[in-house]
Amino acid sequence: MITSTSNSRIKEARKLQRRRTRHEQGLLLLEGVRLVRDVLQAGSRPVEVFYAPDLIEHNPAAQALVDTVVRQGVEPLACTPAVFATLVETVTPQGIAAVVPLPVLALPAVLRFSLVLDGVRDPGNAGTLLRSAEAAGVDCAIFAPETVDPYNDKVVRAAMGAHFRLPLRVCAAWDEVAALLSPDQRLYVADAAAAQSYDAVDWTRPAALIVGGEAVGASAAGRAIAQPLAIPMAGGAESLNAAVAGAVILFEAARQRRLSGRSAGL
Amino acid sequence: MITSTSNSRIKEARKLQRRRTRHEQGLLLLEGVRLVRDVLQAGSRPVEVFYAPDLIEHNPAAQALVDTVVRQGVEPLACTPAVFATLVETVTPQGIAAVVPLPVLALPAVLRFSLVLDGVRDPGNAGTLLRSAEAAGVDCAIFAPETVDPYNDKVVRAAMGAHFRLPLRVCAAWDEVAALLSPDQRLYVADAAAAQSYDAVDWTRPAALIVGGEAVGASAAGRAIAQPLAIPMAGGAESLNAAVAGAVILFEAARQRRLSGRSAGL
Repeated sequence: MITSTSNSRIKEARKLQRRRTRHEQGLLLLEGVRLVRDVLQAGSRPVEVFYAPDLIEHNPAAQALVDTVVRQGVEPLACTPAVFATLVETVTPQGIAAVVPLPVLALPAVLRFSLVLDGVRDPGNAGTLLRSAEAAGVDCAIFAPETVDPYNDKVVRAAMGAHFRLPLRVCAAWDEVAALLSPDQRLYVADAAAAQSYDAVDWTRPAALIVGGEAVGASAAGRAIAQPLAIPMAGGAESLNAAVAGAVILFEAARQRRLSGRSAGL
Repeated sequence: MITSTSNSRIKEARKLQRRRTRHEQGLLLLEGVRLVRDVLQAGSRPVEVFYAPDLIEHNPAAQALVDTVVRQGVEPLACTPAVFATLVETVTPQGIAAVVPLPVLALPAVLRFSLVLDGVRDPGNAGTLLRSAEAAGVDCAIFAPETVDPYNDKVVRAAMGAHFRLPLRVCAAWDEVAALLSPDQRLYVADAAAAQSYDAVDWTRPAALIVGGEAVGASAAGRAIAQPLAIPMAGGAESLNAAVAGAVILFEAARQRRLSGRSAGL
């Protein structure tokens, strides 16, 4: 039982709360029963697992997960609740956490339906966008410049495991974004002030949707390469939540693709 | 300048952080430039306005708002940043807050497109649902039992002023919900396990959508009276964020209503 917050394995894992350490070491620290289970189910093998026996005492799902990890040949490390609390950023930790390799999923040969996060800084919105994108059949999520780190703790929690099933790429510059996209993908950008409605687009054709951050919308670079689309709104609302606007457009695309038979997954 | 956190007007306003006090006094404490401005624009007249000169020093929008309040005949009360911080629950307060009457907007004579929040406990999701509902042309948002208080600080912030433009009602029991709805409204409930797809419904007819909480979905009471609808999902995702699922269905309804010419507002 680890009882000291200065235990070396605890200290090493805690460093993964920092962006730079995550990228340098290629590792991610995850917390929570559902997230750890999703990641194992997606085929990821943990490097390290920590649990707090006192916290999972009345949680059979967490106990079963510890047993699963043991069967996979990983020896989980028991900690006191106080030590466990230093590992995670949640207010009420569930008592199980895992260190796993940063997922690097292969891209399809040709992108046909992609999401570009352009300056989305709110981690909850970014994670919710990833979760929605996977469910809408997106083939790649691209993090454009000025966007939150996809492996930020809150992004990972909001994405509910999408990181381990949907290919994503982080681009430090817009020419990297352009290089990822296919030449035949039409680019659209969500913009509350646009004249064209999001449902007037033929989404059965190869496309990429750019979603900007909530405060300032998409960047000048994103706007320069994409056609603006609005979601018609009633009432006095000026805009939608960024994750909501993205999802409404992505699922209109998914609906059209499903009805046309273009999407096998839906 | 108020320099003491035990100033009686500060103490009275702070009590409005509690649900019971809000409902007993019929008052709401709001913070932030955009929210206070939205509420004034919606025609609400503040009972009290607090501001921290040191916090709005470099914020012309906040200063203009203080001037607007003065022109409306309300004398804003200046506080130190430390006093102001005790009023609000935001981490980085913008320096302006208002106490306003709890909005009670009239219902249309007959409801035709309503949203029922059924056990939505996450305040961010509830507020985001209100914001989306207003923009989708919903005519009433109904808070069913076991749902977060609509006047909770985080709900109000996520709703971006929707409380002051969209009629909402809080129901302590399901028979109150049923009494609000029109007999010709068809009831649907978002349910990831449903066989029927959300876009196979004729949303141009009078309808109400029930959205449950993220952890457990809609209540047994909600399910008993409504037809379940799913959003088809690709990939390995088990579900969508509750606010996203609600918005995707509400905007499919809005799209159908707009295309059929039933909705004047869109």
